[in-house]
Amino acid sequence: MAEKTSLITITTDFGEADYFVPAMKGVIYAINPAATIIDLTHLIPPHDIYAAAFTMMCCYKDFPINTIHLVVVDPGVGSARRPIMVMTDDYNFIGPDNGVFSYIYQRAHVNRVVHFTTAHYFRQPVSNTFHARDVFAPCAAYVSKLIDWKMMGEEINDPVRFNTPTPVVASEKEIRGTVIHVDRFGNLITNITANELPEERVRAGARVRIGKHEASRVLTHFSEANPNELFAYFGSAGFLELGVPRQSAASVVEARRGFEVEVIVGEGTAEADSNPKSGLSS
Amino acid sequence: MAEKTSLITITTDFGEADYFVPAMKGVIYAINPAATIIDLTHLIPPHDIYAAAFTMMCCYKDFPINTIHLVVVDPGVGSARRPIMVMTDDYNFIGPDNGVFSYIYQRAHVNRVVHFTTAHYFRQPVSNTFHARDVFAPCAAYVSKLIDWKMMGEEINDPVRFNTPTPVVASEKEIRGTVIHVDRFGNLITNITANELPEERVRAGARVRIGKHEASRVLTHFSEANPNELFAYFGSAGFLELGVPRQSAASVVEARRGFEVEVIVGEGTAEADSNPKSGLSS
Amino acid sequence: MAEKTSLITITTDFGEADYFVPAMKGVIYAINPAATIIDLTHLIPPHDIYAAAFTMMCCYKDFPINTIHLVVVDPGVGSARRPIMVMTDDYNFIGPDNGVFSYIYQRAHVNRVVHFTTAHYFRQPVSNTFHARDVFAPCAAYVSKLIDWKMMGEEINDPVRFNTPTPVVASEKEIRGTVIHVDRFGNLITNITANELPEERVRAGARVRIGKHEASRVLTHFSEANPNELFAYFGSAGFLELGVPRQSAASVVEARRGFEVEVIVGEGTAEADSNPKSGLSS
Repeated sequence: MAEKTSLITITTDFGEADYFVPAMKGVIYAINPAATIIDLTHLIPPHDIYAAAFTMMCCYKDFPINTIHLVVVDPGVGSARRPIMVMTDDYNFIGPDNGVFSYIYQRAHVNRVVHFTTAHYFRQPVSNTFHARDVFAPCAAYVSKLIDWKMMGEEINDPVRFNTPTPVVASEKEIRGTVIHVDRFGNLITNITANELPEERVRAGARVRIGKHEASRVLTHFSEANPNELFAYFGSAGFLELGVPRQSAASVVEARRGFEVEVIVGEGTAEADSNPKSGLSS
Repeated sequence: MAEKTSLITITTDFGEADYFVPAMKGVIYAINPAATIIDLTHLIPPHDIYAAAFTMMCCYKDFPINTIHLVVVDPGVGSARRPIMVMTDDYNFIGPDNGVFSYIYQRAHVNRVVHFTTAHYFRQPVSNTFHARDVFAPCAAYVSKLIDWKMMGEEINDPVRFNTPTPVVASEKEIRGTVIHVDRFGNLITNITANELPEERVRAGARVRIGKHEASRVLTHFSEANPNELFAYFGSAGFLELGVPRQSAASVVEARRGFEVEVIVGEGTAEADSNPKSGLSS
Repeated sequence: MAEKTSLITITTDFGEADYFVPAMKGVIYAINPAATIIDLTHLIPPHDIYAAAFTMMCCYKDFPINTIHLVVVDPGVGSARRPIMVMTDDYNFIGPDNGVFSYIYQRAHVNRVVHFTTAHYFRQPVSNTFHARDVFAPCAAYVSKLIDWKMMGEEINDPVRFNTPTPVVASEKEIRGTVIHVDRFGNLITNITANELPEERVRAGARVRIGKHEASRVLTHFSEANPNELFAYFGSAGFLELGVPRQSAASVVEARRGFEVEVIVGEGTAEADSNPKSGLSS
């Protein structure tokens, strides 16, 4: 017992008002009393596998190696969709095979994907509506007890993925990306990173266009933005984001996930010349 | 220290915004640093002992044996209502004596009910408004340290219970039950279980009536239901429920807790004949 | 490993829907797998350092000695405000130097305030927008591993404080205080305690005035109040509060934080004579 067992994080769209999440935790502790369970969030919008995938992408690497990330956003519960485990070099991801791990397939080194088929590791009887408790939670608990995956299921080669759009560097001056998430403050998170838009190019100035709106500056600190200014910045998850101080940028520019974003480099206000007091606004 | 102490779950109507729940946890950890505390939920509607009782009923058994379930939904705080512990074969339940454990009295083997009277185990001074911190949390912590209940209070024989309606099998064809809970999605949970309505009878077809509305099918999977269809199903807690895909059934049929539900067996669409694509709707 | 490491509580305004809080927890566990993390609350109103300060004041002492209280309500993230640790006799408080620990300076014995300057203990690279993950969480984790503060930063003598109003005993009969918090039920919490208004004086009767409204009684139990009655009581945090049964006192009397409250002793309904059934109302 000298060795600390893995952490288990839980991400769901169940909310925090019902017995759903605690039932999952009870099942896990009943199987592995030494588990440490961490709520990632239970406020994923109902059935929004894209939001769950984004949220997981942004923080899974902050957890210790060997953490088990359990994600149950499962609009297809009770249908034939498979319960799976994605085993990467550093983490195990457990959830329904509905694309929720698409970013993981893209970003991590996946060693295998296992389809859990061994009913011995399920809570019996398995209900039609609550596989989080009856399938996913017990499987996560057994994985945390280091049960060999070969006992629990079979390797598969065709996990479901959704399209994860890639930014396009259209020319020396132009990068086209996509809004991949809107956070609860209404900030618009794009898929553009410092790979497409390195810091030295930002210093020359950049305009960021979305629909009919435009941010004329890429700032490094929220505190530099003017009231009502639409501005761009690299957020804490490493993506270019669009925000408006103390307002919802999504409302201001009437945008949502999937909207195109265009960056024109060498225009707009250059970083070195920017004057936070200048009253520029979108 | 080889033995793992009991888990303590906490259920309240305090919400998650104030210092109330963390104060309870601080008190517990100060008394028993080895405790493991699990939030069951803090979003019980204010003063709704029925919702707390239902929520606890649905998941208490998923926790490991010896778990301490602490429930503080306590509209009578500061009055003469008693702080109690319900000791069953497998669990200890701690909370105010206001009926919140009514389902436990009905379903579990209760060995005794203890009225906590020994002020030595309370946080001093005991406030008038926050017995969760001053009475219930410290008592739960001491119970988790295996203090003998005889040190902490006296056995009582008259705990408060509310009426837990029982479904009526009125005839070969007719079962009458009651809505005992509405979940946050608006699904209507009745008190009818597979005991009153076994699977083989459902296969012959069944209509479920509530007010002027009727579900013509008892489905086994959410994914079989048609858009806008009012349908019945056995939920994950084992009860017959009424739902409408992606809508609030409670709003659609204008029903709430306490409403009568009638099941007519041998009518409606039989399970074996059901066609998920048929476009039937309520 | 016989010794239990300190607890770490976390208080933020990040909400519970995003990856912000779990990223903090992941960072802490990655540095100190033996940590025990407790969510204090993540529902502080955005940027409201006063609410965070009040919430912390009300429950920090309920935690075991040596608990680390991490508070990240940080409107100035990315600016020059300092990341600090306030070391008192019993606890360590970690957060931005923006006044959020003002009540601690007033109430606890502060041994020193440390400005975290050693980048070695930060998560690299430090983002501009998420010091909770990159600075505060790792510093809390290293403090929980008992790293000497001298390794982590430098002592400072000028931490930021906001004004913490003190009640005024204007005369034998009159005490003037201030509303310092409004809880989620709309109860108005003043800064008047039993020091200014001892129980024996309350027994002689007291009127509590706020704006044009007046509570004619200081009750000891919520259950004594009449429907619609504005009444005063000493709340669980030790402060005189104003409430209306099952309503928001803040809405009823149209008051908010900063409003003046006046107590006139020797008037109003004396405690000993109070008749809970008398139908008095404000």
